[in-house]
This record gives sequence, C-alpha cells and structure tokens, in this order.
Amino acid sequence: MVAATNSLSKEDKRAKFEAVFPILVDEIVDYLTSVNVPQDAKDWFKKSLYHNTLGGKYNRGLSVIDTYEILSGKALDDNSYFRAALLGWCIELLQAFFLVADDMMDESKTRRGQPCWYLMPNVGSIAINDSFMLESAIYFLLKKHFRHETYYVDLLDLFHEVTFQTTLGQELDLLTAPENHVDLSKFSQDKHAFIVIFKTAYYSFYLPVALAMCMANVATPDNLQRASDVLIPLGKYFQIQDDYLDCYGDPSVTGKVGTDILDNKCSWLINVALAKASPEQRKVLDENYGRKDADCEKRVKAVFEELNLKKAYEEYEESEVSTIKQRISVLDESAGLKKEAFTTFLNKIYKRSK
Amino acid sequence: MVAATNSLSKEDKRAKFEAVFPILVDEIVDYLTSVNVPQDAKDWFKKSLYHNTLGGKYNRGLSVIDTYEILSGKALDDNSYFRAALLGWCIELLQAFFLVADDMMDESKTRRGQPCWYLMPNVGSIAINDSFMLESAIYFLLKKHFRHETYYVDLLDLFHEVTFQTTLGQELDLLTAPENHVDLSKFSQDKHAFIVIFKTAYYSFYLPVALAMCMANVATPDNLQRASDVLIPLGKYFQIQDDYLDCYGDPSVTGKVGTDILDNKCSWLINVALAKASPEQRKVLDENYGRKDADCEKRVKAVFEELNLKKAYEEYEESEVSTIKQRISVLDESAGLKKEAFTTFLNKIYKRSK
Repeated sequence: MVAATNSLSKEDKRAKFEAVFPILVDEIVDYLTSVNVPQDAKDWFKKSLYHNTLGGKYNRGLSVIDTYEILSGKALDDNSYFRAALLGWCIELLQAFFLVADDMMDESKTRRGQPCWYLMPNVGSIAINDSFMLESAIYFLLKKHFRHETYYVDLLDLFHEVTFQTTLGQELDLLTAPENHVDLSKFSQDKHAFIVIFKTAYYSFYLPVALAMCMANVATPDNLQRASDVLIPLGKYFQIQDDYLDCYGDPSVTGKVGTDILDNKCSWLINVALAKASPEQRKVLDENYGRKDADCEKRVKAVFEELNLKKAYEEYEESEVSTIKQRISVLDESAGLKKEAFTTFLNKIYKRSK
Repeated sequence: MVAATNSLSKEDKRAKFEAVFPILVDEIVDYLTSVNVPQDAKDWFKKSLYHNTLGGKYNRGLSVIDTYEILSGKALDDNSYFRAALLGWCIELLQAFFLVADDMMDESKTRRGQPCWYLMPNVGSIAINDSFMLESAIYFLLKKHFRHETYYVDLLDLFHEVTFQTTLGQELDLLTAPENHVDLSKFSQDKHAFIVIFKTAYYSFYLPVALAMCMANVATPDNLQRASDVLIPLGKYFQIQDDYLDCYGDPSVTGKVGTDILDNKCSWLINVALAKASPEQRKVLDENYGRKDADCEKRVKAVFEELNLKKAYEEYEESEVSTIKQRISVLDESAGLKKEAFTTFLNKIYKRSK
C-alpha cells in the first residue's frame, strides 16, 4: 500500500520532491556527455542548475503532485510520483529561467539567501545564456519522458503559452514601473491587474494544475477554461496579498522588510490609493513614492492610512474569495475535474500572514 | 502558372520574403490586443520585433523556402510560399533572440548598421526580457499556423533541440574565449569544432532544411540523419571560412575589418596555429593573442604566415568539401530527399570571398 503524498508532512513532501532533482540533472549531464560537451561546460551548467533551481519553497512544483494525486483519486505509485515531480521541476526550471533574468534586470543582490547567479564569480552577463539553458532543460526533460504521450504536445503548448504570458507581464511591469524613474501617471488598477495575472498567476497557479490535468487526461479545452477561471483570480489574489503584506505584514512573520514603496513598485496599494486620493494626497504620493528615502516612505504610508487601505484590502479579499468559492462550488466534476484540487489551493493562501 | 521562387533574382527573393514579416507582426499584435495588452507594451514589442529581426541577409529564412521548393518538385503556390516563409521567419526570430543576448554578452555596439537593441533609448537590460519575447513569438506563430499538422510536434522538437545546441555552443565559446582574459591553453581544435557546430551549424544549416523536410513530409529519422551528416560539416566549413576571411579576406569585398585576433576569438586559425607552433612561436602567440593592440596583432599574423595557415586552410577546404560532395553523391533519394537541395547549399558557399 503506497502512502498518499498528500498525507506527508510539509517537510517530508519537500524532501521527497527535492530528492528527484539530482536524477534529472544527471540525465541532462549524461546527454551532454553523449554529445561530447567538454567537461568545463558540463560543470558550469550543472552548477547553474543547482544554484538557480534549488532553495525556494517549491510551491509551484509541489502543486503539480498534489493536484495530480487529487485528480487520480489514489495514492501515487513511485513511477507516477516521479513523472508528476518531473513536471513540477519543469515549472521550477521555468521559474529559474525567469529569476536569473529578473535579478539582472532589477539589479538584485541576493536570491534565496545566496548571491544572485549573475553576481557569482566569473558569471556576469554569461547569466543571460545560462537562463536560456535553464529553459532548454525543460524541453529536454519533457521530450525524454513524455514524447510518447498523446498529451506531449499539450505540455509543450502550455509551457510556450505561459512563458509568453509571463514575459508579457514582465515587460509591462518594466515599462510601467522602472525603478529609477517615477511617473505615477503610468500606473492604473487595470495595468496592475494585467501585470499580476500575466507575470505571476499563469505560471504559478494555472500552469501546475494544467500540467497535472494533462497527466490525468482531463485537460479538455472546457476543463482548462474552468480551471483558469478559478486559478487566475486566485493567483491575482495571492499577488495582491503579497503587495499588502509588503506594507502591512509583520516582518518577524514574513521574514522580510517590505521595500515596494521605496522601489517604485506598481503594487495594488498604490493603485488603489491613486484611485481614491484627493488632489492634495496625490501630490504627496507623486513627490514621495519610489524615492529611496525613509521619510518619503513614511509620508506615503500616512496617505495609505488616511485612505484606509487596510479596509479596502479586507473588502477586496472578501469579495474576491467569495467569487472564487462560488466558481469552485459550481464546478462541473463530470469531466474529471475535482473541486478538492481547488479548495486545497485556496485554503493554503486564504488569510495567510506570510 | 506560378513562377518558381528559385527562379527569382536574389533581390526579388529577399523582397518577397521581407513582405511576409509585417503580416506576422500584425498577427502577434492582434493577439496582444485580444488579451488586452496595454498600448505601450504592444508598441514596445512591435518595435523590438522590427529592430531585431529585419536587416540581415535572411540566408537562413530563405533556405527554408528554397529547400521546400526543391523537395516539392514544383513552384510554390501563394499559400505554400507563405507557410514556408513563416517557418523561415521563425528561424530569423530565433536568430534575433540569440543576437539580442549575444550583443549584450559581447558588449557589441552595432548590429546590421544600427545600434544594438540594448543600446537603444530606454532599453538597457530590458533587452533580456525582449529576447525572451522574440523566442515566444516563434511558438505563437507555429501554433497559430501549424497546430493541426501531424508534423507540428516535430517542428517544436526541432526548435527546442536546436535552441539547446546553440546555447551550449555559446556557453562553451564564452567559457573558452572570454574577451578580457586570454588563456590559450583553454583552446583546442576539438573545442573549436564543438563551438562552431553547436553555436552555428545546427541553427543555420540543419534547421532550415529540417523544417522544409517536415513541411514536405519527408522528415523521417533516417532522412534527418542523412541531412545532418551533410549539413553539419557544411555549416562547420562555412564558419571556418568566416574565421579565415576574418584574417585573410579583402575588407573591400567582405565589408568588414577582422578583429578575431584582437578579440581573443577561439578561431580556426589560432587553433591550427597552436597545434603546429614551436615553443618559440607559442610564446609569441601567448603574449600577443587577444590584446587590443595593432602591434600584437601583427606579431600573431607573422606567426600565422610562418606556419603557412593559408595553405592549411586550402587543404582543409579541399578535404572537407570532398567529404561533403561524397556524402551528397551517395544520398538515397528514394525516401524523398533530393541531392539538389544540398548541392545548391554547397555551391552558394564554396570558395566564397565574402
């Protein structure tokens, strides 16, 4: 009798998932050996794979397994677990591909407690090519393990579609909120919604479930649309929580001190503030948002208080969660979807404090 | 009666091909409109598509059409021309994706007579994300026009495989010959061969023919292997010509003054020189290669003369071309391949002077 993966503790789930990664790296390195890639290039790529893919929370990767187990309706045997985990690692590789590039574009210094890859010795701008190679690893692994499946082409289409959406979201974010040039007239609630949905929701919420649906052979266009109708608002809600916690979270719980106001981020809070502000409050925001100065940040936070953004957030949260719950409750399970796959997701993030 | 594309003049071929691109850009922009991408983000992507994809020689893109027409055995009608041209533009987009990144990694200043994309106003490191979007455009166009074809999945596999190979070649090139750190002990003829085959031959020579073979329904594993056996040596030969012409070409014909010696490039010439050099000559090479200094360059060129690299090149050329001709001559045409598709290719580059 195989124990259900979903019955494991959070730590055990993570450890079991992490144990799959070296197997995948070895497969990639074996391929490189077979085409006579010189040793230094193999070592370099291996180092990049480990540095850039490990160390996160693996929420996206683990969601593939959780969802697949729920859709299967039974505990996963070793082979099924491995294949679901492999798809999970492909999302983690996709994330690594984005993050290596994002860190260069944002000039970030650290990522997951380590120096960003481009700041590692001798890396620098080679990191751009390394990001491409992380993406290539996805398609290498998919081909090796799923080429014979009828849904192989659907996996490829999903990765392509979601990659395009994520880069579109990133592009609009970069154009709307460049770190060193504040222009709040570029911001809007519509743009904010577009950015969070395209930059985060598709690859973090829709993709894990859609991949699991492919594996479970329930990825019909209708089912995918229904999943998207729940998961995209859920991903948007998650990102708006992030924006909220950046300002109002407890750093001793979240583990970080928010810098969105200092960094000119196109966050949910500033967009709601801009929509509600009087001309006087707008002036304070224009003059103080996105300045690398603690006093400026305080003035912005004072306007947020005046506008009672905490209450606005609570209202948004109740309304969005109620929509999501409603959509889950009417979900048609006859074609293989399961409400449980979505409620599990929602329960993980509802009223989270970190 | 449709005129064969292959009967057009070089200029007319180019103009006909170039006329297809705006149609593809409009399709991409229409999609962006349909998912509510804000205007500034659409304008940005459109500008990137035009700036980075147009202005080259289009050898790769045009090769898809030439090869497809030869394999079809008849003049292409408008629809077939458009579809072959679309695949050609997908290679040009792949090239754009690589070049935007290469220019950043090499800190190049100009490309095709214009400033490199990352040096255009307000672009900078956003160019990294723009390169990702150029790649996404490939898969968007393939899906839109080829999703229903049985060979759709083969097109995707080909693009993935060749992208991985190209980034592997680029990685080894960056590790072996960093512009600012000369260490000739890292060079070798084997590494040189690996770099030129992976970085250039696969996407520039194999990919156009393989895509045309898919469209012509002759892309069996055997046929692909036979094509590769001819096209990879051909692509290697082409790149070695490039290396040769960089040093020995006539700038009034090639249109550029070579800088491989100054730039520490892992070129065919230096690798042959290293294999033949006496300890004294090796010392001269170690002390003068890759220095941004005209006198150093002269000393390297003097060693090249002493070692008679021109003659070594001519011997290599005759030997490689003879192998390629031999492979073409025994090519099995019974499963849909045509020798003509390969001889056309070879004739275009044999003894070229630019």
